[in-house]
Amino acid sequence: MSLTQITLDDVDDLAAGCGVLGTGGGGHTYAGALMTRQALQDFGPVALVDVDDLPEDGLIMPIGTIGAPTVGLEKLPSGTEAQKLRAVIEERLGQPVVAVMSIEIGGSNGVEPVAFAAELGLPLLDADAMGRAFPEVPMVSMNVAGVPPGLLLMCDSHGNVATFEPVDAVWGERLERATAVAMGGSAIEVGWLMTPAQARGAIIEGTVSQAVEIGRAIRAGEGIAGAISLLEGKVVDVDRRTAGGFARGAVTLEGTGDDAGRLLRIEIQNENLVAFEDGRVVAVVPDLISLVDETGHAVPTELLRFGQRVTAIAMPCDPLWRTPRGLQVAGPAAFGYPDIVYTPVEETRAGRA
Amino acid sequence: MSLTQITLDDVDDLAAGCGVLGTGGGGHTYAGALMTRQALQDFGPVALVDVDDLPEDGLIMPIGTIGAPTVGLEKLPSGTEAQKLRAVIEERLGQPVVAVMSIEIGGSNGVEPVAFAAELGLPLLDADAMGRAFPEVPMVSMNVAGVPPGLLLMCDSHGNVATFEPVDAVWGERLERATAVAMGGSAIEVGWLMTPAQARGAIIEGTVSQAVEIGRAIRAGEGIAGAISLLEGKVVDVDRRTAGGFARGAVTLEGTGDDAGRLLRIEIQNENLVAFEDGRVVAVVPDLISLVDETGHAVPTELLRFGQRVTAIAMPCDPLWRTPRGLQVAGPAAFGYPDIVYTPVEETRAGRA
Repeated sequence: MSLTQITLDDVDDLAAGCGVLGTGGGGHTYAGALMTRQALQDFGPVALVDVDDLPEDGLIMPIGTIGAPTVGLEKLPSGTEAQKLRAVIEERLGQPVVAVMSIEIGGSNGVEPVAFAAELGLPLLDADAMGRAFPEVPMVSMNVAGVPPGLLLMCDSHGNVATFEPVDAVWGERLERATAVAMGGSAIEVGWLMTPAQARGAIIEGTVSQAVEIGRAIRAGEGIAGAISLLEGKVVDVDRRTAGGFARGAVTLEGTGDDAGRLLRIEIQNENLVAFEDGRVVAVVPDLISLVDETGHAVPTELLRFGQRVTAIAMPCDPLWRTPRGLQVAGPAAFGYPDIVYTPVEETRAGRA
Repeated sequence: MSLTQITLDDVDDLAAGCGVLGTGGGGHTYAGALMTRQALQDFGPVALVDVDDLPEDGLIMPIGTIGAPTVGLEKLPSGTEAQKLRAVIEERLGQPVVAVMSIEIGGSNGVEPVAFAAELGLPLLDADAMGRAFPEVPMVSMNVAGVPPGLLLMCDSHGNVATFEPVDAVWGERLERATAVAMGGSAIEVGWLMTPAQARGAIIEGTVSQAVEIGRAIRAGEGIAGAISLLEGKVVDVDRRTAGGFARGAVTLEGTGDDAGRLLRIEIQNENLVAFEDGRVVAVVPDLISLVDETGHAVPTELLRFGQRVTAIAMPCDPLWRTPRGLQVAGPAAFGYPDIVYTPVEETRAGRA
């Protein structure tokens, strides 16, 4: 946790860690890592800071890609979006942007903000708003903390800029999603701009360091701290479509080795939402469900294919998501599973053992 | 043409004239006229002005409803949209709004701006950007004149505000249309904000007066100047659906009286686009095609029904639309009819006679 900057040497570890925290979503880290490596070569290392390191009158800019990862895999940003958005923000709000923050640490959305920070000459906050990846605009810690979305901004690779002042976060999601689809299925978004005072208690701190640490553990062939194995097996069915601005579907794994004869079905909305075995929920949002290959690296939803050898793992979510308000924002009911009562994955597995 | 203000006594004539100029679209005038009558009762008459009457450093605010008229028929504005939009404009652009202008004089979009002007305490410009109604954002005289869209704004009845800085008018249409659908199918829009200097030569002047004049002629039982009868008959088929933010479809009329034995098929995208008889084009955009009932009042697309007695009339469009650039922006090809060569309706009919 002693990281004070992100250098070229950290990119692969960060990407690997973000992959696992992405729970299938947040965008494949391949292109984001390439982009970030280039930006660090061009502009040098990015300072990794805490909220207390920032001037109190400046704005933290939470940034990420919105859209379907199935689209984002092929449709890359132009590289000028972050500059455009920063300029619009500073003109609109009359305050300087003093730090970049990942909206979600999961997937490429945990990696690309390093590139944006490098390009903008700004530090990166060692924090995000999810501690994982979630598919929808309202599913952020700021919303759990009761902070309204404020000004939402989007910029696409053509240079089109859209801004929204929605009456609430749900309307923010509707408007941004429709615009993301109109922009071609993927765009850069900023929202919940905050001063350090507003950010305290409303963000999840230390998650950039955590992602690098997970990546280092993967590289060292060590297990991921806190991860629970759900099933080791192979992909026997992938149902995946891009619909309404999301990647939706399900993947079925058939157990191999000690898990032979077992089937695990995971339902997906950009991220892995619920894992079912014999009709029983074995893990569910907001807990993390990831599929990792034999090297320990995560396989994002958009790259799942028949026959792949993967292990399904689950990890406890940040405690914030287990509060009543956290579950309201990103629990099973928020994803269309009103009948699933959330049980922490540690307890589900303990009950099984 | 000597109108200097719009009073309560003018609302019905304005609505009747806008109905005919709406060519089936622009929104049914019924609710807009009610809203306008209420606003004029509350705030008094609205001054009708020319560009030269306005201060040179102020902004003209072109305003209208965007969406499918089939939705707008049931989904009414809240009445606070114009105030919200004006506030955002003045904050963003740092210039005062000095006049309201109809984006399109056709349908309710020619009537409601009177209410907005009354509510805002501003004059109404005796002009619009179409001289009729068209379904898409780029189909405005400012675009023909080469003026870029600038800042586009939308506000819905919930109070959500969206703004766009698109790279061109076509992107403006894509982004606004998607947002209109997300906002429930209908919303208030503003775009192409202009100073008087920018407006000169880029708008169609005198169209509010013209609409009132047409309404007076209808009330007096006189014919509409310049109107050509295409067919007198009844509706024998209506194919109408709300798709992608538009009302689309076709209506077929069967001739009665002297026109017995003839069939006219009119294809629709919010507005009446093309009238075919025996596979031959008898009138086509940008010329105006309207259906009027026995009282001379227009029947908008969303109210067409089997068995209705109507007369299909056509009117020449503003000369602006007959220029090469005008036809590029709103000629047959812009509506997906690349094989129809535009012929002015006077010539089509003359060739027939």
